[in-house]
Amino acid sequence: MTRIPFAELKAEFVRVLVKRGCDPVDADLSAQLMAETSCDGVYSHGVNRFPRVVEYIDKGYIDLRAKPVKLDGLGAFERWDGNLGLGNVNAKLAMDRAIALAKESGIGAVAMRNTNHWLRGGSYGWQAAEAGCVGICWTNTQPNMPAWGARDRRIGNNPFIMAVPRAQGHVVVDMAMAQYSYGQMESVAMRGELLPVPGGYDGQGELSCDPAEITQTGRVLPIGYWKGSALSIVLDLVATVLSGGCSVRQIGERGGDEYGLSQMFIALDATQIAGEAYLASAVGEIIENVQDSERIDPDHPVLYPGARSLAHREVNLAQGIPVDEAVWARIRSL
Amino acid sequence: MTRIPFAELKAEFVRVLVKRGCDPVDADLSAQLMAETSCDGVYSHGVNRFPRVVEYIDKGYIDLRAKPVKLDGLGAFERWDGNLGLGNVNAKLAMDRAIALAKESGIGAVAMRNTNHWLRGGSYGWQAAEAGCVGICWTNTQPNMPAWGARDRRIGNNPFIMAVPRAQGHVVVDMAMAQYSYGQMESVAMRGELLPVPGGYDGQGELSCDPAEITQTGRVLPIGYWKGSALSIVLDLVATVLSGGCSVRQIGERGGDEYGLSQMFIALDATQIAGEAYLASAVGEIIENVQDSERIDPDHPVLYPGARSLAHREVNLAQGIPVDEAVWARIRSL
Repeated sequence: MTRIPFAELKAEFVRVLVKRGCDPVDADLSAQLMAETSCDGVYSHGVNRFPRVVEYIDKGYIDLRAKPVKLDGLGAFERWDGNLGLGNVNAKLAMDRAIALAKESGIGAVAMRNTNHWLRGGSYGWQAAEAGCVGICWTNTQPNMPAWGARDRRIGNNPFIMAVPRAQGHVVVDMAMAQYSYGQMESVAMRGELLPVPGGYDGQGELSCDPAEITQTGRVLPIGYWKGSALSIVLDLVATVLSGGCSVRQIGERGGDEYGLSQMFIALDATQIAGEAYLASAVGEIIENVQDSERIDPDHPVLYPGARSLAHREVNLAQGIPVDEAVWARIRSL
Repeated sequence: MTRIPFAELKAEFVRVLVKRGCDPVDADLSAQLMAETSCDGVYSHGVNRFPRVVEYIDKGYIDLRAKPVKLDGLGAFERWDGNLGLGNVNAKLAMDRAIALAKESGIGAVAMRNTNHWLRGGSYGWQAAEAGCVGICWTNTQPNMPAWGARDRRIGNNPFIMAVPRAQGHVVVDMAMAQYSYGQMESVAMRGELLPVPGGYDGQGELSCDPAEITQTGRVLPIGYWKGSALSIVLDLVATVLSGGCSVRQIGERGGDEYGLSQMFIALDATQIAGEAYLASAVGEIIENVQDSERIDPDHPVLYPGARSLAHREVNLAQGIPVDEAVWARIRSL
């Protein structure tokens, strides 16, 4: 493990993207989002994912020359086609549009089809909060989880994000509908450890904390069992139907690679609706009350959603972003 | 257990409400929603809850003469004060407004403060879907669950609803952020059974399937552990901040009774956005694909969210709604 300064990591992402034909403005934005994601501690969706992004560019799944296009609109709602451009650049634009619509109409929404993996979904929650808005967004994915009561994987883990602005650090929930991602289970398995709570089923059909067994059956567990399964289905429905894009099932028909996704972005102009002073005090009260909870373990504070990202950010900005040496060598060679 | 025809159950609700001074139009609407909730099999939030509704009327927490009032608006967003009226009548009106705003602007939202328990949250999802809209809504509650890492209860189970229209039966997710409600745990405990999956912690701080032990510690489990805890906090934040109403903490300062809640209602005009034909085919494809999953138990079909309500509805409309005899006697005496 080595530590790479933010600017150096970002510059490396820019270099590789531009080398492959990306225009410098898009490359800068995409690289900024990936560097921020890594800086916030979500390495799986930042630096560690970058080689896969480049692989998808090389395979033609991501079109670096594409620009998203507005298809139509209805009041405070717009539908866009992502034209298979870079997922994080597209998602940033979609949330920007939702924010602009919210500034005019209190609430605004964008549905985007034919887009690509947005990397860290939380980025677009942070973005909305930074603009003084409540942000809500979600994406569909490959079929990677069985529905409740099913053995084969037909639903997505469909990450769902909800964010609220707060001066001392935005409140951002970024949660997939699976209890653990495959990436998390792989890391735990590589360390020879067990998951802290069951993440799926083993070969005998029993709930299991063994990431290797779960990865083998593919029977990962939705959050809240039947509840996360149900929410996953409805998230896919809304994103697909309103964007006119591919459903989880249709993405699954592409032979295992994940591209051409459907996404939803909603913003509410919290600052204009609530007023800056009330917004700050009401959010502050709720968060402080949660933080003041009686701790189960006196050494573990009760955290608000987003606190961990901010803590990582502070350390990584000061000391550099931890990057696996093999991954870094790989990126340098691209 | 006795079976009461829908019309008789509804008439009994109307009688009691009107006797207490409710105007007949509101009484009819409230009774209709409670009878539908019971008919759909959600007895805990329909007929079994009615005596508590009447208790709250008698205590003055629910004001039968109150009418909700629009406070202000910004484009496709409106803020309302529920004036502590009947929770289900208020929520119906709020979703009606969100739907009307969505018909104009593609998307619409209402935040309502000072309202009361809406009984079955799913009702307002069904309502939006019935109007051809995607419906998203949530409410805050009393503090009834510890945040992740905490021992004392400072967050709400804050039910979250998302619905999509479908001719053969709407797709409706209606999920609280707790794995089980206290009512569900009580029923399981009364039957001397265990919960199928852990619902909270026992006195030794271990995850438990024993509803009596969990009820005693009050340490109920959020869905997806840390994930449901985080989502609960953000749902409370958004509803409170945008409505200017009470937070979970403030509701908890009322000495144990749950009134004066904050709620959010969002609608998207799916029919206008997607077109009726595409909406029907896209929704149908996704739902059929889930239903066609390989079953874990050949005797248990994989259900779409909302299927169970529809199955209950069919049986209960034909045979009458099952009502506990003691509850029925109690209601008849009110």
